[in-house]
Amino acid sequence: MKRITTALHIRALLSLRQRSFSSTTSPIQAKYILLTEQLRETSSLNGINGLLGWDEMVMLPSKAIQSRANQKAALAKVLYNKQTDPELGELLNTLSQSSEELTTVEQAVVREALNEYNKTTAITSELATQEAELGTTGYQAWVKARQESDWSQFAPVLEEWIDLRKSCAQLIDPSRPAYDVLLDDYEKGMSSQRLEEIFSVVKQGVIPLLADIRKSKYQPTTSWLKKEGNFDTVTQAKLCEDIAVAMGFDQEAGRLDVSVHPFTGGTHPSDVRMTTRFKEHDLTEGLTGAIHETGHALYEQGRNQTPAWQDLPINKHLSMGIHESQSLLWERMVALSPAFSYYLLPKLQQSFPESISKEKTATDLYQALNAVQHPSMIRVEADEVSYILHIILRYELESGLIDGTITTEQLPQLWNEKMEEYLGISPSNAAEGVLQDVHWGAGLFGYFPTYSLGAMYAQQIYATAELALPTLQQDIAQGEFTPLKQWLNLEVHQVGSMPVHGDELMVAVTGQPLQPKGFVKYLEDKYSQLYQL
Amino acid sequence: MKRITTALHIRALLSLRQRSFSSTTSPIQAKYILLTEQLRETSSLNGINGLLGWDEMVMLPSKAIQSRANQKAALAKVLYNKQTDPELGELLNTLSQSSEELTTVEQAVVREALNEYNKTTAITSELATQEAELGTTGYQAWVKARQESDWSQFAPVLEEWIDLRKSCAQLIDPSRPAYDVLLDDYEKGMSSQRLEEIFSVVKQGVIPLLADIRKSKYQPTTSWLKKEGNFDTVTQAKLCEDIAVAMGFDQEAGRLDVSVHPFTGGTHPSDVRMTTRFKEHDLTEGLTGAIHETGHALYEQGRNQTPAWQDLPINKHLSMGIHESQSLLWERMVALSPAFSYYLLPKLQQSFPESISKEKTATDLYQALNAVQHPSMIRVEADEVSYILHIILRYELESGLIDGTITTEQLPQLWNEKMEEYLGISPSNAAEGVLQDVHWGAGLFGYFPTYSLGAMYAQQIYATAELALPTLQQDIAQGEFTPLKQWLNLEVHQVGSMPVHGDELMVAVTGQPLQPKGFVKYLEDKYSQLYQL
Repeated sequence: MKRITTALHIRALLSLRQRSFSSTTSPIQAKYILLTEQLRETSSLNGINGLLGWDEMVMLPSKAIQSRANQKAALAKVLYNKQTDPELGELLNTLSQSSEELTTVEQAVVREALNEYNKTTAITSELATQEAELGTTGYQAWVKARQESDWSQFAPVLEEWIDLRKSCAQLIDPSRPAYDVLLDDYEKGMSSQRLEEIFSVVKQGVIPLLADIRKSKYQPTTSWLKKEGNFDTVTQAKLCEDIAVAMGFDQEAGRLDVSVHPFTGGTHPSDVRMTTRFKEHDLTEGLTGAIHETGHALYEQGRNQTPAWQDLPINKHLSMGIHESQSLLWERMVALSPAFSYYLLPKLQQSFPESISKEKTATDLYQALNAVQHPSMIRVEADEVSYILHIILRYELESGLIDGTITTEQLPQLWNEKMEEYLGISPSNAAEGVLQDVHWGAGLFGYFPTYSLGAMYAQQIYATAELALPTLQQDIAQGEFTPLKQWLNLEVHQVGSMPVHGDELMVAVTGQPLQPKGFVKYLEDKYSQLYQL
Repeated sequence: MKRITTALHIRALLSLRQRSFSSTTSPIQAKYILLTEQLRETSSLNGINGLLGWDEMVMLPSKAIQSRANQKAALAKVLYNKQTDPELGELLNTLSQSSEELTTVEQAVVREALNEYNKTTAITSELATQEAELGTTGYQAWVKARQESDWSQFAPVLEEWIDLRKSCAQLIDPSRPAYDVLLDDYEKGMSSQRLEEIFSVVKQGVIPLLADIRKSKYQPTTSWLKKEGNFDTVTQAKLCEDIAVAMGFDQEAGRLDVSVHPFTGGTHPSDVRMTTRFKEHDLTEGLTGAIHETGHALYEQGRNQTPAWQDLPINKHLSMGIHESQSLLWERMVALSPAFSYYLLPKLQQSFPESISKEKTATDLYQALNAVQHPSMIRVEADEVSYILHIILRYELESGLIDGTITTEQLPQLWNEKMEEYLGISPSNAAEGVLQDVHWGAGLFGYFPTYSLGAMYAQQIYATAELALPTLQQDIAQGEFTPLKQWLNLEVHQVGSMPVHGDELMVAVTGQPLQPKGFVKYLEDKYSQLYQL
C-alpha cells in the first residue's frame, strides 16, 4: 500500500480544496478569495520548508545532506516562482486599490502580502545569484577566518556583503536609509533613528550599572548548579518537559526533541516543534534554554485560529523582536523571578537529590540563577545585563558599515575599543572578538538589534501583565502559568502581524511605545538588590 | 538565526545548481541536460513528499492532521503541474525521436519519463477530480460497510470506481485490455494473459498441497514464540536493529523508528526510513516484519550511485512486485530457512532467557517459524502457502470486474465460493470476506498480483543466489549476510528500472523468465518435509 505510484496520489489530492464563490460574491471579493488561496498554498509550502529544516536538525541521517540540500533548493525555486508570480502582483495591486470593499483584516492581509511581494520581486536575478554564492563562500570564509583568528581573510567577503546589501536596499526602497530597509526584514517599521534613541538611554543606564556590579563585594555562589553537581540529562529532559507543559505547551500540537542547537520550528501553529540540549554539569543552560524555546513555541501555538486569519500573512509573527520578547518574557521575567525559584527549587531537589541539598533556599536559587558572571567576551554566554551592551556594540558597527562611516579595516580595532568602553574587557584576538558571530558572514545586517528589542519588549509587556493579573507572583510560585499564558495569547499571540510595527503593538498592549527607561530601571532595581549596590 | 525571513533563504538557495554546458555540447545533449534538471527537481519534490508521509506516520502531532493534508495538497499540485508541463512533453518527444544521439542509459531515462508523462497527461481534469472525490468517499464507504459488514453499502461505490478506472485505462491506452493498463501502474509490462499462465500453474500445485498440509497429523508447536512467552518490546527492537544492521542496513543512510503500521519510506536512497512494531506476546510478527522492511530498505539504499543514474527515473524501483521480492527474499527465503534458525536461536535465548529455554533447538525454531496455521480468512494473517491463493482469488475477481464478466452483485458469493474451493474455508460474513481489504475502496485494481509475483520472483532469484554463492547457507547460519546483500545490490538493486518488465530482469539475473513451477516445487519440497507428507 505504501508504494503506489505518485501520480495516483497527486491526482487524488488535487481537488481537495473547493472554492467558496456564491452568486452574491462581488468581483473584488472573488479576487480576495483567489488571493487567499494563493497565500495559503504558499503558507503550506513554507510549512513544508519548516519540516525540511526541523528534520535536518533532528532526524536526517548523515549521508543525506546532499539530497536534503537538493530538496530544499527545489522547494525554494517553487516558492520563489510562486511569490514572484506577476499574476499575484496584479491581484495584490488591484486589491490594495479597492480597500474600501475589504474588511480591516483583509486590508492587512493585502498590505502584508504586497509588502512581501514588492521586496521579493525588487531583487534582480543577478543579485539573487550573487547572494546565493556569497551565502556559501561568505560562510566558509568566516569559518576559516575564525578558526585561524585572521581578520584579513574575512574582510574582503564582508565588503562584498556590504555592497550587495546596499544594492538590495537601494532596489527595495531608494527613499530610505539602506540600514533601515535592511532592518525591516527582521523588525518591520523599525529605523536607525528610533534605535539610536532607545540605545542611548540604555547605554547611559547599563554601562555604569555593570561597572557597579563588577565592583560589588557580594558575589553569589553558582557552582552548585554547574560543575559541582551531576545532573542526569534524561532527568533534566523530563523536568523541562513537565515545565513546558505547565507553561502551556500543547503536546498535541507540537513536539519536544533533542538537537545539538536548540531551536523552535515546525510546520504550522498546530505543529510546533522545539528542541533542547542538556549538559550533565550545567543545570542552568538546559533549563533556561528549554523555557526560552517554550516561550517561542507558545507564541507559535497561540496564533489566531479565526478562519479569516488562518494561514494568512497577518497570522505570522510580527517581528523577530516580538518573537524574542515571548521567549525572553518566560526565560527572564518569569523564570529568573524570585517567585519562580519557589516553584522550581522543590522540583530540582526532587529530581537531583544528590546534587541539590535540602538546605538550599529559594533565595539561594534566585541569586545563583541571576549571577552576573565575570563579563564574557562572547555574546551568547553573556548575562542579562551585559548582553544588551554586546548588541549595541554590534548595532553601532554594522550600521556604520552600511552607511559608510566605518570601513572594514577599522572594524577590529573599533570592536575592541567599544568592548573596553561598554564592558570593561578587551578581546585578545579576532576569534573571540570581531569574528565571533556568524551573522555578518551570512550577510545578516539588521538582525542583531532584535535580540535586545526582544528583552525590552518583554520587560514592558510583563510589567503590564503584572498590573492586569494581580495574583501573578503567587500563581508563578505555585506553578500556575495559565493566566499569564492566556493573557499573552490574547494580547500578543493572536494579534499576529496586524500591527505595522512593534511600537504599535506596545501601545495597544501597554499603553505606550517601547520605553527603554523602564527596562533600565528594571535592571537597576533588580541588580541593586541582588548585588547590594 | 532560525527565523530569518523565508525570502532570504529562498534567494540563497536558488542558484545552487549550475548547468554543465560546454562548447562541444550538441543541441540534443543540451536538451537532455535540461531534461535531467527537470526530472531531478521532480525527484527532489517527490523526496519531500516521502518526508511528509513518513513524518505523518511517525512524528506528526494529532492536531496537525488538517495542516498536513493542506501541505500534501499544495505539494501535489506543484508536482502535478511540473509533471504535466507541456514543455516537458515537447522535450521528451524530441529526445525520444533522437535516440541515436543518446546512450542506452539516457534512452531508458527518456523512455521511463515519457511513459510517466503520457500516463499523467492522459487523464482529463474531470476524471482527476472525480478520482479525488472517490478517493475520500470510496474509502469512507468501505470503512463503514466493513464495520457494519454490509456489502450493499459498498457495491455502488465499487461500481463508480470500476467505471472510472475503465475510463482512465481507455484514455491511457485504448489498444490494450483495461486491466492490463491498470496493472502497468504497479507491475510494468505485466499482462492478464501472463498472469493467467502463472497462476494456473500455482493453483494446480498449491491447492492440493495446502489440503495435504491441513490433513497432516504432524503440527509444529508455535505457542512458545507467542502467547506463552513474554517478549519485552524494547529488547525486541534492539534485536531487530542488530539483525537489520547485520543484513546490511546502513544507519548513516537511513533511520529505524516505531510506527503503528510498519512500512519503509524515506526521501532518497541516502535517507531510507523504515518502521517496525512489536507485540509483547508475539515474537514472530515483529521479527519477520522487521526483516521484511529491511529487505525493502536494502533495495532502496542499494540503488545505483553512478552520476548518470542518480535521481532519474531509471533509478526507481522496477515494479511493486520486484520491490516485494526484495522484502520477501529476506523474510521468507532467508529468515525462514533452517540456516537462519541456527543464527537466530542463540540470539533469542540470550535476549529472552525466561521465555526461550536452552533446550529449544534450531529445528524447533525452524518448524515453529514455518507453521502453516489453520488457514485464515484474512489475507494479511496468512502463511506463505495460503497467501498466494488469497491473491489469486482477488486477481480473478478484480480482473473479472474490469473486463465485465463479473458484476458487483455476484462478488460476495463468488468470493465465498472461491475461498471454499482454494482454501477450504468460507467466511461467515462480508467483513471477514469480500470487505476485508482496503484496496478496492481506494480504487486500486491491479495491485494485488504484485504481492505474489514478489514471492515468486524472490524464490527464483534466491535459487540463483544459492548457485552463485556456494557457501550461502553456512554464511547465513553464521550471520554473515554481506555476500548475499552485495550480490543483490549488483544483480537487482543497481539495475533499477532499466529493464522493461520483471521478466526481463528475471532473464538477466536467473537466465529465464518467471517460472511458477519452481515456486511450486519449492513449496512442495519444503512443506512435504516440514509436515511429513
